[in-house]
Amino acid sequence: MMKAIDLNSDLGESYGAWRMGDDAAMLDIVSSANVACGFHAGDPSGILRTLRAAAQRGVTVGAHVSYPDLVGFGRRDMDIAPADLTADVIYQIGALQGLAAAAGTTVRYVKPHGALYNRIAVDAVQGAAVIAAIKTVDPALALIGLAGAQILDQARAAGLAVVGEAYADRAYTPKGHLVPRREPGAVLHDASLIAARMVRLATEGVVEASDGSAIRLEAQSICVHGDSPGAVAIAREVRRRLEEHGLGVASSLLPGLRHA
Amino acid sequence: MMKAIDLNSDLGESYGAWRMGDDAAMLDIVSSANVACGFHAGDPSGILRTLRAAAQRGVTVGAHVSYPDLVGFGRRDMDIAPADLTADVIYQIGALQGLAAAAGTTVRYVKPHGALYNRIAVDAVQGAAVIAAIKTVDPALALIGLAGAQILDQARAAGLAVVGEAYADRAYTPKGHLVPRREPGAVLHDASLIAARMVRLATEGVVEASDGSAIRLEAQSICVHGDSPGAVAIAREVRRRLEEHGLGVASSLLPGLRHA
Amino acid sequence: MMKAIDLNSDLGESYGAWRMGDDAAMLDIVSSANVACGFHAGDPSGILRTLRAAAQRGVTVGAHVSYPDLVGFGRRDMDIAPADLTADVIYQIGALQGLAAAAGTTVRYVKPHGALYNRIAVDAVQGAAVIAAIKTVDPALALIGLAGAQILDQARAAGLAVVGEAYADRAYTPKGHLVPRREPGAVLHDASLIAARMVRLATEGVVEASDGSAIRLEAQSICVHGDSPGAVAIAREVRRRLEEHGLGVASSLLPGLRHA
Amino acid sequence: MMKAIDLNSDLGESYGAWRMGDDAAMLDIVSSANVACGFHAGDPSGILRTLRAAAQRGVTVGAHVSYPDLVGFGRRDMDIAPADLTADVIYQIGALQGLAAAAGTTVRYVKPHGALYNRIAVDAVQGAAVIAAIKTVDPALALIGLAGAQILDQARAAGLAVVGEAYADRAYTPKGHLVPRREPGAVLHDASLIAARMVRLATEGVVEASDGSAIRLEAQSICVHGDSPGAVAIAREVRRRLEEHGLGVASSLLPGLRHA
Repeated sequence: MMKAIDLNSDLGESYGAWRMGDDAAMLDIVSSANVACGFHAGDPSGILRTLRAAAQRGVTVGAHVSYPDLVGFGRRDMDIAPADLTADVIYQIGALQGLAAAAGTTVRYVKPHGALYNRIAVDAVQGAAVIAAIKTVDPALALIGLAGAQILDQARAAGLAVVGEAYADRAYTPKGHLVPRREPGAVLHDASLIAARMVRLATEGVVEASDGSAIRLEAQSICVHGDSPGAVAIAREVRRRLEEHGLGVASSLLPGLRHA
Repeated sequence: MMKAIDLNSDLGESYGAWRMGDDAAMLDIVSSANVACGFHAGDPSGILRTLRAAAQRGVTVGAHVSYPDLVGFGRRDMDIAPADLTADVIYQIGALQGLAAAAGTTVRYVKPHGALYNRIAVDAVQGAAVIAAIKTVDPALALIGLAGAQILDQARAAGLAVVGEAYADRAYTPKGHLVPRREPGAVLHDASLIAARMVRLATEGVVEASDGSAIRLEAQSICVHGDSPGAVAIAREVRRRLEEHGLGVASSLLPGLRHA
Repeated sequence: MMKAIDLNSDLGESYGAWRMGDDAAMLDIVSSANVACGFHAGDPSGILRTLRAAAQRGVTVGAHVSYPDLVGFGRRDMDIAPADLTADVIYQIGALQGLAAAAGTTVRYVKPHGALYNRIAVDAVQGAAVIAAIKTVDPALALIGLAGAQILDQARAAGLAVVGEAYADRAYTPKGHLVPRREPGAVLHDASLIAARMVRLATEGVVEASDGSAIRLEAQSICVHGDSPGAVAIAREVRRRLEEHGLGVASSLLPGLRHA
Repeated sequence: MMKAIDLNSDLGESYGAWRMGDDAAMLDIVSSANVACGFHAGDPSGILRTLRAAAQRGVTVGAHVSYPDLVGFGRRDMDIAPADLTADVIYQIGALQGLAAAAGTTVRYVKPHGALYNRIAVDAVQGAAVIAAIKTVDPALALIGLAGAQILDQARAAGLAVVGEAYADRAYTPKGHLVPRREPGAVLHDASLIAARMVRLATEGVVEASDGSAIRLEAQSICVHGDSPGAVAIAREVRRRLEEHGLGVASSLLPGLRHA
């Protein structure tokens, strides 16, 4: 049986007259699309376009839920009450489910975005609010989170399917955390190096940390970006090299495969 | 078999720190709740509260979809492209479906709000965009519209279940249109008179027009308001008098009843 | 010469169809109006109404600036970059200045709202961002802040006029901080007691803390609320009792008086 | 004395994480910057950046005011009450004045954007609402509008300075109206042709209509676009050819020049 790994990317992030990213190009590369739900990006019409393009290519769809902060693109930490956060996440999942139905596809997972993603990696209260939202709408929805983060254990303990992800273009500390963006070398730019690292991750389960040590990451998915032509080229190279090494690129959440 | 008529009201119209209407009081009176979906009113947390209260009382829930215009409360006509309008309506229905699932209930119908309601009463292009949205998300959803308006024929022709509604506190022209709000006598305030008119409508199918003539209205539902203590009292009186005359107050859209 | 103290209140907090507070009643009581600028509350048309009513009564006007968070009413802490915060505050002050000109009045001070108010009481970075905004638009604008908070020293050191304020209906710790709202007794409701406390503050410069000790507060202004009929009655009683004790109610920022 | 004409362009139209246009490139070409005010585009931080760049280059600044419609980019006609429209326009002008002060420049004119621009070209009620806003904030602000449109006469009659503008890349009907965008040939793409047309306009006061006839346009300004590399190149060519023909590129609204 061929070994496979998932490639996911943040899509549907245009808003009205503003374009962001090259969704069509990325949908030819990834197996999972984290689609914006309108709170940090994405207007209904644009979201629908992205969902239709994902459906055409058989790309698995997830809800990229966020704090309500368009002007901040969901990147600013917010002290939101847990009950409000739960309702915000339900609202976004539901909205995306409606649009997904219109596009002939189905929402399979939830990936929190930006500041919310970082917050629930360490804040179990907001984490519980997100988990409660998912279980309430559809307990079959999986949660994508940072490989190694406590939110994955928390979600698993709550009965959710979880998917750990690695970041293709980010450096890791020896403890397995992401090197903060403000530090030198935090973001990798060499497509060939990045692809080689991801092949090693997919085949050996390890990635090389910033000090040269090998760290183990339980990642079933790799996050790639598409917000610049360079980023798209990196994503394409990652996929090419994975396939060159005999690895499939596929979501583990496809129906029928889920309980395999 | 007891004859019944539906009472519907616009609910869930608070937003963040701002309160509007007395949802708890109205949910004890009406059989159908048109719940705001966030575009003219309603934040996710407040919507969820209203949906839970509706679910507790067995009140049927509909999506009160709107143009995207919070500051204008959805009351300003907008020239929105049909494809964008369709996506906006799908988004709102989906969001409400998600929150309804969390509240243990189900969205049964769609009622356009404010300027959109008035527009599709006469504009078949925007009407078609709304109908397309409903059919795409769930063709079992009914559409509530103004009794006698062309949108009901249009929706019926498209295969949707429709519910015509009358306005309890509004005067009608001899042709069966609402007297515009800016004209004297357009809005009725006498609870007893209003209740008597609605009893006549429910029993004889007619309402007295502004010139004293009797006009026929095919209304399966009566819209009552709850945005002031006086409005709540009127709604209560309408229900009391309907029941006094042996009429039931119930939605025609309850599952099991729908195809009766 | 008659001693005077300022009474300030948060006004202009309606938004579109949603009403909040009784601005007309409060403008008959207070000497300073903290007017919302559209980021936590206030649409342009409603703000203009409040400014006109303030101008008619000779009430001094300030910009009640906030984080951009309508649905959270500016009450949720946000990690906003200092440069963005500065620009947000400038934008709000400018918008209010434009509307104030249209109403025939002038913005005299800035009072940060909600979470921003609390944040800059302790966070000198966001505090500096607010101060930079004020100095940039008009260095003659004063800053109202919590009596005793570091932001007042910081603003004074930066060359701004500052006004310390006390909260009429809040209990104080022995150290002069507000008792957090979640603790019992944090909010006072007895109009007579509240008025007596404020008379003592205005005459002796002290307020009784929650443990019975007397604490010194350098407050040139007292914040009163108008968000319920009970709150309006308390504000009215505070003013009545101040006047009964021969104290004037006036802003210290009136032109001509400022350098007295 | 050298004859001069103004070149204006819509700038500051990025929003949060979304980029639009190449403001730096355009500010090297134009003499007037129509800067977004947050209602159709432009967040405070981004607006401030554009204003600073305009100030550095001595480019005259105007307020590009819009209906409140971010997701529709201000391009959708809205039935907004005149009093609300006036307040909306005042708010935007004031906000931009605040940011302009911070950038060391001054707002000199107002140019309505998108659907509002088209509406007031023909709707004297909304036109009057815009004029009232301008006069209220600062009667020295000029209004830029479509050369030949009634709004210019209306504004002039109300005592405002007006600037008529021609569109560099648009075809004109024999009556001097813009050929609607949906018609073939409505938008011109040939930089050399466009530049030649604008030289003729600046020197002879005429532009060739779609039927080959010459029409007279009283335009003191030419609108050029910067939303694509091609558009920037066209704008640059227009300027180059104007200068080649001995024409200056300058705003007529510079202080000192205004009453020349």
